[in-house]
Amino acid sequence: MARSAQEQRNLDLVLAMFREVLVPLDSAPVDRFIAADYIQHSPLAAPGRDALKAFLDEIRPSHPDAEHNLKRAFVDGDHVVLHYHVRRWRDDPGMMVCDIFRVADGLIVEHWDVIQDIAPAGPNPNPPW
Amino acid sequence: MARSAQEQRNLDLVLAMFREVLVPLDSAPVDRFIAADYIQHSPLAAPGRDALKAFLDEIRPSHPDAEHNLKRAFVDGDHVVLHYHVRRWRDDPGMMVCDIFRVADGLIVEHWDVIQDIAPAGPNPNPPW
Repeated sequence: MARSAQEQRNLDLVLAMFREVLVPLDSAPVDRFIAADYIQHSPLAAPGRDALKAFLDEIRPSHPDAEHNLKRAFVDGDHVVLHYHVRRWRDDPGMMVCDIFRVADGLIVEHWDVIQDIAPAGPNPNPPW
Repeated sequence: MARSAQEQRNLDLVLAMFREVLVPLDSAPVDRFIAADYIQHSPLAAPGRDALKAFLDEIRPSHPDAEHNLKRAFVDGDHVVLHYHVRRWRDDPGMMVCDIFRVADGLIVEHWDVIQDIAPAGPNPNPPW
């Protein structure tokens, strides 16, 4: 069940983007990871790479305590999946996120996400991660 | 970037469970796919296989028009990821779901999900799938 060398490169690209862009909410390295014409499917985001950079620039100053805790990551061919917990501020119960990325020629070219707020209490004592 | 034979078996198991259990909301085949002691992380579900069967039995009669439209599926080792759109009834805009399953010895032994309602309108004209 080994990953191919190409799959490992695709996974490494997305993990580096997670560490350098999403965790610090930093738009500066975006062009090294995301293609100019990438296809955005997130319902929260305006389409296009520039919109992503503008979004990061907008939220970074107001979220100095944001935390992104990666729980698991998968790669299958040209698709990479990340499952992580985001806290936007201290004491935020946060959200679970599933991001799906498609990689081509060493850049992220397409993105989908599913985001769900952490439920305050419910029928399941197991954590959602 | 080929999947190993074991990965293909893991993916096929989860896809069969999707077709035979989730699409028809049918509890009868659950034991063929899900281990007795499987670990449930869905915040909406009580833990355990029996709770899943009870949930399916409860919702099936009231959801004759439910649709599950699989958009993409991935496998990486013992983990399988499904990304799909659910409509609970006619004219339901529905929800996007990302399910993550862990497989061991030919059965699903652990499950996480992230679920998000389809937004009525937003900044992104691209669909969320």
